[in-house]
Amino acid sequence: MIRISLDAMGGDFGPAVVIPGAAKALERHPDMVFVMYGLQQECEPILAKFPKLKEKTTFHHCDVAITMDEKPSAALRRGRYVSSMWRSIEAVKSGEADAVVSAGNTGALMAMAKFCLRTMENIERPAIAGIWPTLKGESIVLDIGATIGADAQQLLDFSLMGGAMARALFEIEKPTVGLLNVGVEEVKGQEEVKEAGRMLREANLSTISYHGFVEGDDIGRGVVDVVVTEGFTGNIALKTAEGTAKQMAELLRSAMSRTLMSKIGYLLAKGAFDRLREKMDPRKVNGGVFLGLNGIVIKSHGGTDAEGYAAAIDVGYDMVRNALNQKIVQDLKTYHARRLPPAGPEEAA
Amino acid sequence: MIRISLDAMGGDFGPAVVIPGAAKALERHPDMVFVMYGLQQECEPILAKFPKLKEKTTFHHCDVAITMDEKPSAALRRGRYVSSMWRSIEAVKSGEADAVVSAGNTGALMAMAKFCLRTMENIERPAIAGIWPTLKGESIVLDIGATIGADAQQLLDFSLMGGAMARALFEIEKPTVGLLNVGVEEVKGQEEVKEAGRMLREANLSTISYHGFVEGDDIGRGVVDVVVTEGFTGNIALKTAEGTAKQMAELLRSAMSRTLMSKIGYLLAKGAFDRLREKMDPRKVNGGVFLGLNGIVIKSHGGTDAEGYAAAIDVGYDMVRNALNQKIVQDLKTYHARRLPPAGPEEAA
Repeated sequence: MIRISLDAMGGDFGPAVVIPGAAKALERHPDMVFVMYGLQQECEPILAKFPKLKEKTTFHHCDVAITMDEKPSAALRRGRYVSSMWRSIEAVKSGEADAVVSAGNTGALMAMAKFCLRTMENIERPAIAGIWPTLKGESIVLDIGATIGADAQQLLDFSLMGGAMARALFEIEKPTVGLLNVGVEEVKGQEEVKEAGRMLREANLSTISYHGFVEGDDIGRGVVDVVVTEGFTGNIALKTAEGTAKQMAELLRSAMSRTLMSKIGYLLAKGAFDRLREKMDPRKVNGGVFLGLNGIVIKSHGGTDAEGYAAAIDVGYDMVRNALNQKIVQDLKTYHARRLPPAGPEEAA
Repeated sequence: MIRISLDAMGGDFGPAVVIPGAAKALERHPDMVFVMYGLQQECEPILAKFPKLKEKTTFHHCDVAITMDEKPSAALRRGRYVSSMWRSIEAVKSGEADAVVSAGNTGALMAMAKFCLRTMENIERPAIAGIWPTLKGESIVLDIGATIGADAQQLLDFSLMGGAMARALFEIEKPTVGLLNVGVEEVKGQEEVKEAGRMLREANLSTISYHGFVEGDDIGRGVVDVVVTEGFTGNIALKTAEGTAKQMAELLRSAMSRTLMSKIGYLLAKGAFDRLREKMDPRKVNGGVFLGLNGIVIKSHGGTDAEGYAAAIDVGYDMVRNALNQKIVQDLKTYHARRLPPAGPEEAA
């Protein structure tokens, strides 16, 4: 049985999306149960429409809901201990749930998750990992915006955590990891990326296979399973890709509606377009995963619909079932144990 | 008359693309003349096929050609004073040409251009500006890879230079400028972006209209005429967008060839697809412009064809005709004069 905690008030549409989304996810994975936090008067009428979900859900009323534009510090002041966001995270800490899913505002969710769950040993800053559709399937990209700037050690930690997530999500034994970089040689700067590359090569890890540097266009080609970068670049790469996909879809739509021939062509090829849309659909890959915390936190896109929210729950389900955090803890332990070998005759080996 | 200097040996295909490209550009702009640098035995037979171009071209033989994978420092050592790349740049310095176009390797071209032409007064580091297809038309994005990391003053210089380029290329009076940033509030780091924003707002420039921060997905939407960022992020954003566009085209192609219906649909809508491809075609927007040097240097994509190379020449033509560098010099002068007001009673004003 996998127990998911839900912040029913998170996202642009709150329980109107969260509850139908949970119902969809439950259909796919009947071995789930939910704890749900939100305003009773808003949630109960919706929950009543999904009797199967209601049966599997323990509901807790919360007076306070964090808004989408609230600053993290303000959200923390106002919402700590009492908001649906905080309490849904706390359910993971107390052991009531295995993972939490929220479509609430990213900054507030990260601030509360850090405060409530704390970071893992040896992890200074958590990262947000996104799932990126590629020509070969899906890749993981992190960090996509939890932090700005990262030193070599943090990039290495991101590599370990992303590798563990790839093993948990894609069920591959030794995922490939690439460091995002620019192709220009002999340009000064980004020493931390080069240093992280050296460290990864030397570490010769058993859990991931270090591929080397990758460039921006390698992400969509699916050259590696895990792409590692600091949060500023990662966020801009992600949003630029989203923007380009939307732009192309828009141009295609307008091109297809220009002549009678192209309109007929569109109707005949509609199935193909639908498949394309599905493949590039951000709703289908809607789970941002917070990595490096003592608990699994899934961030769903704030503007998503029930289908997208269900996909985020699916990601949480997979992460729990495949023991994401145990994998990360184990990988970090192994790495750091090797970094600090006990003094003695083996030291030189 | 506009005089363009050509590095015939630059790019993956050298004169086989450069010469037909120049011929295409000349058809569109008969008021151009060329100085061309390259290996005589390679260039002459190709040039002979384009008599109109040959008539407008002064050819100079050079023994040395810079290769595409040569490191900038090595290229500079081996190719200074003697290579087709160096000599085509030198033609701008000596006043023989108004702008130089090369499809040669970016690092070497930038190193030679800096060494030969030197940076403008008040400009510490040149930038590479790219032309980005958007839903509204085109925008300028800089820096896309000349430097890594930029302080607030450099981001402001990029804004001024990008603004001047937008005025020269798009012929708009007061282009809008946005600083690329992430949407997350209260995240530490990237102080230089925030500081540049403050400086731009306070400077209240007459030549550009400062829009504020933009995010990755705003680029393709064409929210601003000029997007400013440092070279690491800019390069990754550009390549990620290219990768996503290719990925979508690939998925579309494979989706369209799956069933008989979709194949027929494709044939009927082929015109529409061709229009889309043209709109997103990197060849059509193939001019990367080096900004901040005492001379106009256009970098064409190394793997482009004659059509793409001609587009790069077109960019050079527009930059010369619309006095790009005079605009930049004037804008920098105005800005820096205001920054350092003469001591006296006006100081407090």
